[in-house]
Amino acid sequence: MATAGKVIKCKAAVCWAPKQPLSIEEIEVAPPKAHEVRIKIVATGICRSDDHVIEGEISGIKYPLILGHEAAGIVESVGEGVTDMKPGDKVIPLGIPQCGKCKCCLNPYSNLCYKNDLEKYSGMLLDNTSRFTCKGKPVHHFIGTSTFSEYTVVDDIAVAKIHQDAPLDKVCLFGCSFSTGYGSAVNTAKVKPGSTCAVFGLGGVGLSVIIGCKAAGASRIIAVDLNSDKFAKAKEFGATDFINPKDYDRPIDEVLTEMTEDGVDYAFEVIGNTGVMTSALKSTHFGYGKTVIIGLAPSTATISFDPMLILTGRVLTGAILGGFKPKDDIPKLVSDYLNKKFEFDGLVTHRLPFMKINEGFELLHKGDSIRTVLTV
Amino acid sequence: MATAGKVIKCKAAVCWAPKQPLSIEEIEVAPPKAHEVRIKIVATGICRSDDHVIEGEISGIKYPLILGHEAAGIVESVGEGVTDMKPGDKVIPLGIPQCGKCKCCLNPYSNLCYKNDLEKYSGMLLDNTSRFTCKGKPVHHFIGTSTFSEYTVVDDIAVAKIHQDAPLDKVCLFGCSFSTGYGSAVNTAKVKPGSTCAVFGLGGVGLSVIIGCKAAGASRIIAVDLNSDKFAKAKEFGATDFINPKDYDRPIDEVLTEMTEDGVDYAFEVIGNTGVMTSALKSTHFGYGKTVIIGLAPSTATISFDPMLILTGRVLTGAILGGFKPKDDIPKLVSDYLNKKFEFDGLVTHRLPFMKINEGFELLHKGDSIRTVLTV
Repeated sequence: MATAGKVIKCKAAVCWAPKQPLSIEEIEVAPPKAHEVRIKIVATGICRSDDHVIEGEISGIKYPLILGHEAAGIVESVGEGVTDMKPGDKVIPLGIPQCGKCKCCLNPYSNLCYKNDLEKYSGMLLDNTSRFTCKGKPVHHFIGTSTFSEYTVVDDIAVAKIHQDAPLDKVCLFGCSFSTGYGSAVNTAKVKPGSTCAVFGLGGVGLSVIIGCKAAGASRIIAVDLNSDKFAKAKEFGATDFINPKDYDRPIDEVLTEMTEDGVDYAFEVIGNTGVMTSALKSTHFGYGKTVIIGLAPSTATISFDPMLILTGRVLTGAILGGFKPKDDIPKLVSDYLNKKFEFDGLVTHRLPFMKINEGFELLHKGDSIRTVLTV
Repeated sequence: MATAGKVIKCKAAVCWAPKQPLSIEEIEVAPPKAHEVRIKIVATGICRSDDHVIEGEISGIKYPLILGHEAAGIVESVGEGVTDMKPGDKVIPLGIPQCGKCKCCLNPYSNLCYKNDLEKYSGMLLDNTSRFTCKGKPVHHFIGTSTFSEYTVVDDIAVAKIHQDAPLDKVCLFGCSFSTGYGSAVNTAKVKPGSTCAVFGLGGVGLSVIIGCKAAGASRIIAVDLNSDKFAKAKEFGATDFINPKDYDRPIDEVLTEMTEDGVDYAFEVIGNTGVMTSALKSTHFGYGKTVIIGLAPSTATISFDPMLILTGRVLTGAILGGFKPKDDIPKLVSDYLNKKFEFDGLVTHRLPFMKINEGFELLHKGDSIRTVLTV
């Protein structure tokens, strides 16, 4: 704990305002206060949610801020009262915390802790202050993580201690995309062995859904995307059937219900298109089919459908971060990976040094990458 | 089995065509074929679904037909191959059958047997013929039950044998309304002890939902209706709070989320109004709230809402007949009643002799009755 109590000067990618590239700056990172943890970030992924903020598409965001929420690192120092981790521990910062005390944390079926900063976007830690300054100005946090920085400070309820053998440049994805997809299959849908699944949208999260369906024992996994180039990767992860809606002149839900004897057991919408959400729902079997919404739709979009689809026994549901109670479950997920319960290495298609972060966002815009991981 | 093999002449209420009163006629009821059961109806309830057919509001219905689907009676004779019941047994005809072999019957979470006649409305038994004639003309069945008749014939997968002590003039409601409401709470929602529930619509099914919520141990049951006169009955069955949306100048979901610290655990829509369905969904707590659709909306109606309501962990679901696997579960429900697990006597507000069936429909139109039961 040599540096405890001292300000750290380091590099971070600051988002000064919407619609401009991130700016690598020297920032000051204050020491952790009580129940806070300062982390040296080792690897951080580039997620579309970060890009939405850069593009100014998320209302309520306070600029300037340091983005990044899918990372892994090593504890540098801890504040007073932190008993469950120490300097040197490997950790994953958490975009949704787990206070363990609120109605959601106490409910075994929910993970949406009251202390999350997902909708109000205060840009602060829980004590309502920031630990970052740049050029003398305070800089906001982003959903309590801010991992586009060599060092960050997080609340201790928003960081999971993981196994010391974990490869940080891979398990960083467990902070967002992989957990979201995989958990949607194993937690939210609770896919049963022998079942049939349809996954709409084959980006990194959609592929993680496929990995989850396979791990849960699904016997048929139908990959659906408008871009047939994505099918090879989907097959690699376990998809068994491949449907491009462009190849059909009728609604894709009709195609799916025909090829599955009246519908799939589980459908996953991983795009954020409300029309596709309805198609997914209609693709599921009457009486028991379950549809999981994972994609984030534009904030003005509404989903519409015949309520008879629900009355006849279908289920429509969703979850943030795949329903994982993050502080409890992410460490278990890391252990499951170390025990070879699943593979996900192919999800990381590009690696860049942290200083080339804007190149990573360009890859995202071009659609060339599944996931780009920055080495910090 | 004295009458086995013989045609029975008896009275039935025939629906010759839409938009006219039912006509009491002498009909002929053919003997049961293999795997069929002929039943002497003892009591039959009047349900809004029957009225929808009389009013011509259900497309695909074939006239003339004999309506009625919420009844109890005594086996008069059985066809070949029927081994699980015999003349003299008390039974409840089932509007959805349980073949035990289809994908829905084999799925532990579904009850929507493939052999149901709910959407195609063939008006026939499973062998695609009718057992009824009147004035020399064949008369159609209705969803395999046709209980507005002194005698009816049903497929053996569409009748549940119940305890011989069951009072038929009460448990006839288990054929539809009571099971639909009660099961929505105990099966579909799986209401947990100590939870908070909101029930939108306080007709017979809504009150049965309240009975189910109470039996499941809910600690707070909020009854919502535009007619405050219905609150007294709701209180009798276990409702603890009463909300009339007319008393508020803001959306009722806001009222409910405020009075329940961010939303109820379970919401039930028992009206068939898609706007109320959305209100119910918005009334539930983020992260885990579950909404059950029970009301049948007009066939052109669509439900619309912000998909973020689902993405943030809510569940929207529904079921026919409260999710009960009818042949297995209705007999258990009767036993639960005989063992005083719940009370529902107050649901039957009117009793009439069968010959006064059209008076029963008038009571329904006037809104004077919760449930009218006809003594056959």
